[in-house]
Amino acid sequence: MTHPAFDAAELRTLLDGRWASVRERVRASLRDNDLANADDLDTESHRARTFEQLRLLAKSGVPELGFPVAQGGGGDQGGSVVSLELLCGNLSLMVKAGVQWGLFGGAVVALGTERHHERYLRDIMSAELPGCFAMTETGHGSDVQRLRTTATYDPATREFVVHTPHEAARKEYIGNAARDGRMAAVFAQLIVGGQSHGVHALLVPIRDEAGNACAGVRIEDCGRKAGLNGVDNGRLHFDQVRVPRENLLNRYGDVAEDGTYSSPIDSEGKRFFTMLGTLIRGRISVAGTAGAATKLALEIALRYADARRQFDKPGADEEVVVLDYLAHQRKLLPPLAKSFALHFAQEELVQALDEVQRSGDERTQRELESHAAGLKAVTTWHATHTIQACREACGGAGYISENQLAGLKADTDVFTTFEGDNTVLLQLVAKGLLTNYKDQFDDLGTLGLAKFVADQFVGAVIERSAAHSIVQRIIDASNKDDILDRGWQLKAFEDREEHVLDGLGRRLRKAGKDNAFEVFNSAQDHVLRAARVHIDRIVLEAFVAAVDRCQDPRNAELLDKLCDLYALSTIEEDKAWFLEHERISPRRAKAITRAVNTLCGEIRPHAVDLVEAFGIPRQWLTAPIATGAEEARQEAQIAHDKSNPLP
Amino acid sequence: MTHPAFDAAELRTLLDGRWASVRERVRASLRDNDLANADDLDTESHRARTFEQLRLLAKSGVPELGFPVAQGGGGDQGGSVVSLELLCGNLSLMVKAGVQWGLFGGAVVALGTERHHERYLRDIMSAELPGCFAMTETGHGSDVQRLRTTATYDPATREFVVHTPHEAARKEYIGNAARDGRMAAVFAQLIVGGQSHGVHALLVPIRDEAGNACAGVRIEDCGRKAGLNGVDNGRLHFDQVRVPRENLLNRYGDVAEDGTYSSPIDSEGKRFFTMLGTLIRGRISVAGTAGAATKLALEIALRYADARRQFDKPGADEEVVVLDYLAHQRKLLPPLAKSFALHFAQEELVQALDEVQRSGDERTQRELESHAAGLKAVTTWHATHTIQACREACGGAGYISENQLAGLKADTDVFTTFEGDNTVLLQLVAKGLLTNYKDQFDDLGTLGLAKFVADQFVGAVIERSAAHSIVQRIIDASNKDDILDRGWQLKAFEDREEHVLDGLGRRLRKAGKDNAFEVFNSAQDHVLRAARVHIDRIVLEAFVAAVDRCQDPRNAELLDKLCDLYALSTIEEDKAWFLEHERISPRRAKAITRAVNTLCGEIRPHAVDLVEAFGIPRQWLTAPIATGAEEARQEAQIAHDKSNPLP
Repeated sequence: MTHPAFDAAELRTLLDGRWASVRERVRASLRDNDLANADDLDTESHRARTFEQLRLLAKSGVPELGFPVAQGGGGDQGGSVVSLELLCGNLSLMVKAGVQWGLFGGAVVALGTERHHERYLRDIMSAELPGCFAMTETGHGSDVQRLRTTATYDPATREFVVHTPHEAARKEYIGNAARDGRMAAVFAQLIVGGQSHGVHALLVPIRDEAGNACAGVRIEDCGRKAGLNGVDNGRLHFDQVRVPRENLLNRYGDVAEDGTYSSPIDSEGKRFFTMLGTLIRGRISVAGTAGAATKLALEIALRYADARRQFDKPGADEEVVVLDYLAHQRKLLPPLAKSFALHFAQEELVQALDEVQRSGDERTQRELESHAAGLKAVTTWHATHTIQACREACGGAGYISENQLAGLKADTDVFTTFEGDNTVLLQLVAKGLLTNYKDQFDDLGTLGLAKFVADQFVGAVIERSAAHSIVQRIIDASNKDDILDRGWQLKAFEDREEHVLDGLGRRLRKAGKDNAFEVFNSAQDHVLRAARVHIDRIVLEAFVAAVDRCQDPRNAELLDKLCDLYALSTIEEDKAWFLEHERISPRRAKAITRAVNTLCGEIRPHAVDLVEAFGIPRQWLTAPIATGAEEARQEAQIAHDKSNPLP
Repeated sequence: MTHPAFDAAELRTLLDGRWASVRERVRASLRDNDLANADDLDTESHRARTFEQLRLLAKSGVPELGFPVAQGGGGDQGGSVVSLELLCGNLSLMVKAGVQWGLFGGAVVALGTERHHERYLRDIMSAELPGCFAMTETGHGSDVQRLRTTATYDPATREFVVHTPHEAARKEYIGNAARDGRMAAVFAQLIVGGQSHGVHALLVPIRDEAGNACAGVRIEDCGRKAGLNGVDNGRLHFDQVRVPRENLLNRYGDVAEDGTYSSPIDSEGKRFFTMLGTLIRGRISVAGTAGAATKLALEIALRYADARRQFDKPGADEEVVVLDYLAHQRKLLPPLAKSFALHFAQEELVQALDEVQRSGDERTQRELESHAAGLKAVTTWHATHTIQACREACGGAGYISENQLAGLKADTDVFTTFEGDNTVLLQLVAKGLLTNYKDQFDDLGTLGLAKFVADQFVGAVIERSAAHSIVQRIIDASNKDDILDRGWQLKAFEDREEHVLDGLGRRLRKAGKDNAFEVFNSAQDHVLRAARVHIDRIVLEAFVAAVDRCQDPRNAELLDKLCDLYALSTIEEDKAWFLEHERISPRRAKAITRAVNTLCGEIRPHAVDLVEAFGIPRQWLTAPIATGAEEARQEAQIAHDKSNPLP
């Protein structure tokens, strides 16, 4: 439609990255199938429609991507993450799909063995067997090691008895549970011969073919939620429910017929975190989807801002386009730059997922988990803040459902606390940094951090991202002390991380047996900051590497500016730290604010073309304010004014 | 229920303030009437129920408070604002009531004359005549001077012809329009004898008794919104609709039978802003309600945080109460302190409204408008941020509708952009500060600011709040350079305001005829900052004055700490400015962060009692997580664990 002052096709290629063909396939599939958001329906119809759409999606062949080749899947976990995020215009469907194929299917793949794969995966891929991922309990969400559901082995019948001992142990917020699920991967304390072996997962049928709850299973409906009302979240209670021994997902822990427990991993803590680690894909998908939903929101708000006018322009016979206001640019353009940065960081993360799958290296796996946790936290908060800013930037129009922002806001809101609460996730990131990923999960929960660090921490070591060599080259080549110099920016991010981490290490080393909680807790804001600045750096380095990959000089120039805007607006947000630690002078601090303003002005003419380059499927862009209604009204007004000037 | 370590009754008295009896009356009325939130209904039923509730409320006698005594009202605008905010648990009803009595009724009272009062007010008070406030148009929301609806006088029939010339001129987002309204106060360009006299309001019937649209009136439904779905927002189109001459609300501009226009105010701009100024109550009510909704959200999140536990406490046989985590305190306690600060600032604002009504002094009126605009912006943003933090602090439970936060978030979201877009409002505040309220509205829109300031601005003058003498006394008595010294805090806020304003004045003085927009626009972030820091000071001074009024020494001590927390967390948020301008040293900056952490710990044990002191009607507290469900589950778990220890 527009004629960007850059090579839009090349930028799209760069953004589409390694899974470009998957993206194109999903875009095509969305053109062929009616997967439109059904938020306007009542709860039951919305759920029914979402379930129908899930089956439509199953037929498209796309969901199979992430499943093993042996059962007819594509064996491409990266592709499966990328395909899911393209559902950003119908987030109920995305979450329903994520539950069915990512969480439920993913658990069977990762925690089960061939007997489960052969028996269930085809029906899971086709959605003939709708399933649940029953981990969270009402009483324990973040601290999943303390789940209270039990699975007790009965050698007499060779069955497990799954039981909910009290209300706090009921399974809570379980997607697919209230209406459609027929089976659940239930996480429970495994008890064999009177001994507990920690949390394991096993498959428990919850509904028969007719849709009735199985004997001993009680299902409650979580009812209306802030958003995602096409997903049937429910609660599961088990009253001594018996399942065959074979239903244990036994890759990391098995029970022989006679009741002998065995596991390839001796430590209970390590075993549990290894199991959790295999489920990392869900968290990466949430980050991807949050990022995609943010892009869609930005596209709506930027298109409207580029058309909407308000207040006469002094000395001109027209009103000012609202995106020409600095305040409006400030609301939308630094988030646009951050969306680019996070996009490239997400691409690196998905590649790392793909590589870890092949290599199986433990340290790389821990690093992947850390990056996934951190990016999930940063990207979902970015979504919450940015979609809110987009809503406000569209005024009353942003509040009307037909303009989509209301739904995007409500649906993505839970992302900051599901698949890991962001605050808890950032603590995991900090823990990894402090211990250099050395067996830190060995029988230690999040709060074991303080004690552990006291023993182990020796000093901050900056762990380099995948972009290592490029970043090092730029830093080495840089000798300018200029805020627009990439080397200076990279060094500023790196130096901040090192300093924050080092200070944190020193604080936590004071922790002993008796004061561990107090020392840890009084440093909690410092812990969270360490994780955030680490992720900031990882994200900047991913952006820098992407600029380096860019072929077209015009694109490189524009991406360069966006990268400056990301780097400098990130520093500006945390300016207090840089000043407090005398990393920048007051004079430079003011120069950074001026530079952010200037960069906003330079990017402004390209804003709409840039956001379009993300290639959000056109099917999702339905908001009247973003698809011509505002322009048509202004034209009518101008035509009317010409023939009927106000007296 | 709990036993606060302070005099809760006295604190309630202090918080209830001058309109304590009105508050008690409304609380009683809420006990007697079923005004429960009906968010779970479908749109039509929700609207119907909200309309029924409006009629119930009419019978309670409370809405009459704000109307003139001559027509049976209470003549108490302050009481009417205070009573409206207590509807914070049913925001659809609050907005419906605000439209009916505040906006529609308020327009008839303030812009009409006795003939309108006598004819309509009784039916408005009783809700027999449901009405709309039809100002905003699709094309012009913030810039209401440029509305395009016309009202042309036809001397032949002594009627006005109301007309929507094109789609951008249709009335948009009009509450009460889609379903219930029978009449609208329509704002239109008044054209008499071929000459335009600017925007005036007139009463236009839109539906007959049977509910059918009147001839020439076309009504559209805005459909679903992010929230407030009990309010029937709609769009109004007028096709040459004729109303009698007497329907002009003629207090500030009248048309004689022969078509002679007259007004007590010569300048068209001043006339318009004077009319708008009389409608200030709506804006003040939005701030009050946003504040009250925030308190309710904080009460839910704090009660849950005070009960909920997660992660084992090292060395103890229990899990940690989540409000004991520093990160959780940081999320909820500075907002609690700010809610106290804004509460007292709002109380001062309502008193000022009451006084201006009596005195009619123009400078005081302008100051009131400025404070109302600024507090509305700051309080509604505080609501958006805090309710979001509360939602996240409650994890998945915060996302389930029955726990109320979803609804509070969705319903209050529009507050930041309705009754004046916050960004535009802050510019009005800055304008007032720069011109010392000297006729600044005389034929100048918001963007006239730059030009005007270039002519008029001479230097920043700190305009003192109502708390003047107390603040001066504290500043004079202070000689300590200590961050916990109130005098130091007050001086820090005042100094920041003066410096920001002074710098802004100097920047804007560079504006000439040709570059006015560019100069203004490039300083827009500075303009917004000037307004914010001004309001920060007004709010701190109101809090300081309230601490001074406090009688009980224990209460004074606790409020003192809360006031410290408000002051220091506000400085902490803007630490970069204080460092950049060398107002604080890096060492002091770190001390402020430590002090905020310490204050959080000191306030934490009283957090629930403090939030309860606001006296949010108990009817509104229905969230299971805040009313005992979590405690009951934990007790059941503990009881179970005792008799069945995990093997």
